[in-house]
Amino acid sequence: MITFILDTDSKTPLYMQLYSYMKQEIESGSIRAGEKLPSKRALSAHLKVSIVTVETAYAQLLAEGYITSKPGSGFYAECSFEETDKVSSPSQLNETAPEISQIEYDFRTNRIDTSDFPFSTWAKLSREVLSERSSDLLNACHHQGMISLRTEIASYLKKFRGMEIAPEQIVIGAGSEYLTGLIIQLLGRDNAYGVENPGYSKIYEIFSANTSRVFPIPMDEKGASAEAITGFGINVLHVTPSHHFPLGIVMPVSRRQELLRWANSRGDRYIIEDDYDSEFRYAGRPIPTLQSMDRNGRVIYINTFTKSLAPSMRISYMILPEQLCRKFTDRLGFYSCTVPVFEQLTLTRFMKNGHFDRHINRMKKIYRYRRDILCQKISESKLGSFVKISGCDAGMHLLLTVENGMKQNELIASAAKEHTRVYGLSEYYSFPVADMPENTVVAGFSGLNEQQLVRGAEALERAWI
Amino acid sequence: MITFILDTDSKTPLYMQLYSYMKQEIESGSIRAGEKLPSKRALSAHLKVSIVTVETAYAQLLAEGYITSKPGSGFYAECSFEETDKVSSPSQLNETAPEISQIEYDFRTNRIDTSDFPFSTWAKLSREVLSERSSDLLNACHHQGMISLRTEIASYLKKFRGMEIAPEQIVIGAGSEYLTGLIIQLLGRDNAYGVENPGYSKIYEIFSANTSRVFPIPMDEKGASAEAITGFGINVLHVTPSHHFPLGIVMPVSRRQELLRWANSRGDRYIIEDDYDSEFRYAGRPIPTLQSMDRNGRVIYINTFTKSLAPSMRISYMILPEQLCRKFTDRLGFYSCTVPVFEQLTLTRFMKNGHFDRHINRMKKIYRYRRDILCQKISESKLGSFVKISGCDAGMHLLLTVENGMKQNELIASAAKEHTRVYGLSEYYSFPVADMPENTVVAGFSGLNEQQLVRGAEALERAWI
Repeated sequence: MITFILDTDSKTPLYMQLYSYMKQEIESGSIRAGEKLPSKRALSAHLKVSIVTVETAYAQLLAEGYITSKPGSGFYAECSFEETDKVSSPSQLNETAPEISQIEYDFRTNRIDTSDFPFSTWAKLSREVLSERSSDLLNACHHQGMISLRTEIASYLKKFRGMEIAPEQIVIGAGSEYLTGLIIQLLGRDNAYGVENPGYSKIYEIFSANTSRVFPIPMDEKGASAEAITGFGINVLHVTPSHHFPLGIVMPVSRRQELLRWANSRGDRYIIEDDYDSEFRYAGRPIPTLQSMDRNGRVIYINTFTKSLAPSMRISYMILPEQLCRKFTDRLGFYSCTVPVFEQLTLTRFMKNGHFDRHINRMKKIYRYRRDILCQKISESKLGSFVKISGCDAGMHLLLTVENGMKQNELIASAAKEHTRVYGLSEYYSFPVADMPENTVVAGFSGLNEQQLVRGAEALERAWI
Repeated sequence: MITFILDTDSKTPLYMQLYSYMKQEIESGSIRAGEKLPSKRALSAHLKVSIVTVETAYAQLLAEGYITSKPGSGFYAECSFEETDKVSSPSQLNETAPEISQIEYDFRTNRIDTSDFPFSTWAKLSREVLSERSSDLLNACHHQGMISLRTEIASYLKKFRGMEIAPEQIVIGAGSEYLTGLIIQLLGRDNAYGVENPGYSKIYEIFSANTSRVFPIPMDEKGASAEAITGFGINVLHVTPSHHFPLGIVMPVSRRQELLRWANSRGDRYIIEDDYDSEFRYAGRPIPTLQSMDRNGRVIYINTFTKSLAPSMRISYMILPEQLCRKFTDRLGFYSCTVPVFEQLTLTRFMKNGHFDRHINRMKKIYRYRRDILCQKISESKLGSFVKISGCDAGMHLLLTVENGMKQNELIASAAKEHTRVYGLSEYYSFPVADMPENTVVAGFSGLNEQQLVRGAEALERAWI
């Protein structure tokens, strides 16, 4: 299959890189005229890019006549461009192939607007760390991370989440992906792991890369249920109760209690509570974390600074119940902490001096405002009569269910024609389910400013009306 | 068993922490009088500390009468100190129980003297990065690491190791431990992995934590051999050909060719070449790496900046053969790079401006000088007549085989009485072998200055004469 290293460092969008690469391959004859191209889904899986990236690249290649689409069969390379002057006729440009050149409003999920990060404060603290702590800066730290940072995290969790944690229970690591891998090593690869379906695709991929026993768990309107788990033989369940990704469900207390009862009923059962964007909660009363409701050491809590600070900072932490702390030191204590001391010292200062609290409060206001703008704009426009908004009580994204007769891919493609990108909910299912949503898209609002949100909503109105 | 969280951040040595903890447990009655204590080896494995740490703590407790030793049976807690005034008689202080209060000369292996790190240059470059690159600093980078850093690494390897690498083959990660875990995920947990025995204990632990199929490979005087691998069904071999840890063997070209022939003879065979301290080579002509001798994409090369810069910096890299690069992107491309962009940008500058080359050259001179001091001091003292030095052509440690009738533990204990610590070679065997060395200790020289090396050698002379 087409193998091509996408440069995510580049300013050039991924779809444009893919478009340019394929155009060149066709022009040079490396992809021969008439050759069948991989399906959009297969290429998306192969290159590990979203299907929208591939769709957009294919659409552009179609529009320029480099490839053709045969309904029911797929995409084929055209004769190399030197040989023919042929440009595709308008009829070839079906609804998945809009004539687009650029996406202006990208409702990407979990996107951080880094312009809101208090960089000058961070840089000032970094400089202080550099000038004051030279010996600590060069020596290896405790394998669970520096005790000073773990103390700050424990104090933050007590103050803002009402969680009673000892710093000794905290393990700091270079990202939740890494920590999830450690959890699998700690609990054992032979457990049966359950992950939410739909869910954050990386979670499924991490479990698949580390164990052969991972099972998708169907969701109801309250999230994963004990009933849904039964039958798979699952004994370790990964959940996102604060704000399910992508459905946006905030798991009610009754369901949390049900899951804890499930975990308590056997000694080898655990729940991994991924609290990835819990800092940003806009409506309803706060619900205690599973970790703080747990009296029997069945919950491993995991959270990240990647979403609350910046994507370039790979700092996450997990909280282990006491008996797992001992097991962790016994079995995995040989691993060095993966986060550099420099970042740990800077973050410690950032938290200690109250900058983290202020930053979170500020971002919460900003994200709430962005959510409100988007919801208001949709409700007040013509979209209001046929678009249902859901999953918007917390986090950085919401769902739009569109009752205009269009299916998901038509919704995406018509939005793309208006230079706007939304994401199909079905893309987040690791496994298809019977009642797959057909006309729902996911829209992240955290990475767009007020003007972009307003114009993006206007573009959706033009696209879907 | 005794469970106790050691604080490696603390200035208090680990053995002293363990001593204080056990003393308090005995005084408080938590460990009851007459209770059998875990064996030194079991406690060392349980707490993940070196056996020397436990030995030193036990020796101190013995010396102060908190515990007693029953030959052939083990260690027992004494009546609590309040009840008796009993102090152990000199006869109880056998050779494993020296009256020591502090180790002054610790020949620990792989220790970096951080005072030699050009910290002010690093801090200056860090400040430049902070002031110049604010947008890059906050956004996620390519999953294999920043292309700018990978380009610098490729150029360094070409210049100093004659290796022809494309930056696209390089994957940057937070430490060799993390990258080794990724390699296992990439190749698959079902392979049969071979690790050198003796070897760096973490390597065995990493493989054990990630796969159930890891086998210790016996070593001959040239290292691991194709013959030794046969019979285990091994298809992936982890080796340290540049300077074996702890035997110090530099694998000759003929043996490297033999291993490559082994790897080439079947499509699923790979060699993981861990080049962890290859920068520091003092004698003999340079031998090409397995990676650069490999014509068939069978070698994964791994190296780290932790040993060449500072232990607090978790930056390592691996070089994948071309077909594994594609597989890596396909299967594991979803993982974010675990090294913060800030460290990557600073290291890129450090390498680009020639500081890394200069630092390595300087450290090589320093380590060579330290090795020479230690070897000379041993050869010229009375030790010269009965101590054989080996494994000193490269790296940061050497072996001392002592022909004075003492066994390994006596050598360690008598050195400890002279406030000097050396390490038993047998400790590095994941599995016992028939011809286990009985009178060889490992001495690292990289973390001691000239005066400490001289005095340490003098202490060994007093201890072993």
